[in-house]
Amino acid sequence: MPPIVVSTWRFGLAANQPAWKILKQGGSALDAVIQGVEVAERDPAVKSVGYGGYPNAEGEVEVDAAVVDGRSLGYGAVAGLKNIATPTAVARRVMEKTDHVFLVGEGALQFARTQGFQACEMLTEDGRKAWEAWKNGQTDAPADVHDTIGMIALDQRGNLAAACTTSGAAFKLPGRVGDSPLIGSGLYADNDAGAAAATGRGEEIARTCGSYAIVEHMRQGKSPQAACEAVVQHLVARVPKAQPHQMAYIALDKRGNWGAVATRSGFLAAVTSNAENHLCESRYFIDRGGVV
Amino acid sequence: MPPIVVSTWRFGLAANQPAWKILKQGGSALDAVIQGVEVAERDPAVKSVGYGGYPNAEGEVEVDAAVVDGRSLGYGAVAGLKNIATPTAVARRVMEKTDHVFLVGEGALQFARTQGFQACEMLTEDGRKAWEAWKNGQTDAPADVHDTIGMIALDQRGNLAAACTTSGAAFKLPGRVGDSPLIGSGLYADNDAGAAAATGRGEEIARTCGSYAIVEHMRQGKSPQAACEAVVQHLVARVPKAQPHQMAYIALDKRGNWGAVATRSGFLAAVTSNAENHLCESRYFIDRGGVV
Repeated sequence: MPPIVVSTWRFGLAANQPAWKILKQGGSALDAVIQGVEVAERDPAVKSVGYGGYPNAEGEVEVDAAVVDGRSLGYGAVAGLKNIATPTAVARRVMEKTDHVFLVGEGALQFARTQGFQACEMLTEDGRKAWEAWKNGQTDAPADVHDTIGMIALDQRGNLAAACTTSGAAFKLPGRVGDSPLIGSGLYADNDAGAAAATGRGEEIARTCGSYAIVEHMRQGKSPQAACEAVVQHLVARVPKAQPHQMAYIALDKRGNWGAVATRSGFLAAVTSNAENHLCESRYFIDRGGVV
Repeated sequence: MPPIVVSTWRFGLAANQPAWKILKQGGSALDAVIQGVEVAERDPAVKSVGYGGYPNAEGEVEVDAAVVDGRSLGYGAVAGLKNIATPTAVARRVMEKTDHVFLVGEGALQFARTQGFQACEMLTEDGRKAWEAWKNGQTDAPADVHDTIGMIALDQRGNLAAACTTSGAAFKLPGRVGDSPLIGSGLYADNDAGAAAATGRGEEIARTCGSYAIVEHMRQGKSPQAACEAVVQHLVARVPKAQPHQMAYIALDKRGNWGAVATRSGFLAAVTSNAENHLCESRYFIDRGGVV
């Protein structure tokens, strides 16, 4: 069944293409997810990831990203990073070139520069206009701009990897971090069991370490779909105030079976393998009273 | 059996005292752990937490802290925070006063100031001397300065809470964050199951979301001690390069039973309840070939 790559939202399908090319040629799941999410990071039309993402309350774009390597449980992450368009590639360098796993703020930017990443203005004209309209009270912060790209992949050697990258909640407090760069919350991968990633309201997602929990459910024998459902059901049962928010997970097991669940309709998983290359609306259950 | 408070390392016993006073008077576990860890945060003799902590590679003290409220799965955290001596109290404000859960870097400092926290110089004369000796090549970075204080408590109403606070690895890269402020890694608490906190080499601890995993093991019926052992055994089996490092967990179940496990000898848990008020060497097993 492998290789396969699964990612979040409509923009995931374009991001899957370079990832799939790497997987098909025998490359690693880690290379695939990092190259894949970079498509969304560099696309100014994606208002919730990387370059062109909506800024914080002070008009500055701050991005968060992480990678997990299922071979070694390797982890690298950055948060509150300014002026770098490809934070997932920086997260990989944190994992591979330092004794650390997570760098934030000005220190993350300093590190990126020492690694040769080019600093750039991340705020686009669209982003500036949206921020000004919010600042002037003409619009509310969009509740739906939290569309992190999460991507999980299984390669021909049976290796799993996960990446997650976002510019975070629109007009957030400076320095705000959601679930995306947090291992176990925004993403997890373990070759022995599976991989998972999250998108949606990070403040709620972080409460239940859902990506880790999904992987553990798969380790215990649940399908990726059943594992995602168990985690979302636990979250909304335990934290009722989370229920109105959109929160979604994608999961892959070590054999290449995938699953996707969201609390609300409209969530799309992008799936690319030898058999599939399309967007699938997830089986969601909260807002329709169960799995449909 | 409740109330009870458990924390990490020798300095935990002093930190337990104000926490115990709150618990004994019927106060909340959340108040107890935040007041408790503040003792270590304010103590310049503790080189790994708050004021007087060893600085980063550039000579600046950066602190990380988090709280988890087991009633609601409430979470608040800060990381890469400079110039604030009591980061756990700031983490609580993030949880209670914002729509967010985690603030990093300059944004975390801005927020703390708006909340009335006083900025102060965090580097003591001892810290500056240690940093200069390292900078001048006279000493290596101390491998053992990663003694985060983690504290977990159960109050008279059956509520659990966890707090974790650290100045991080001595002479770390600026912006480095370990497991301490990460929900599920450095700490977790859920009234339905239990609470746990970690100390030791954060880069390794973060790989297996151990605090969350311990709480899940307790939910499934394991004792706090067995839950800690299962998580440490999984970590060193799955990540052999982690094994030489000191990594330790403390755990409490919802009835007030506690456990503590470390990879190496020398780890102390501070336990304070109606029946106990002392330091206990954990049952460690990796460096003696099993539980002793």
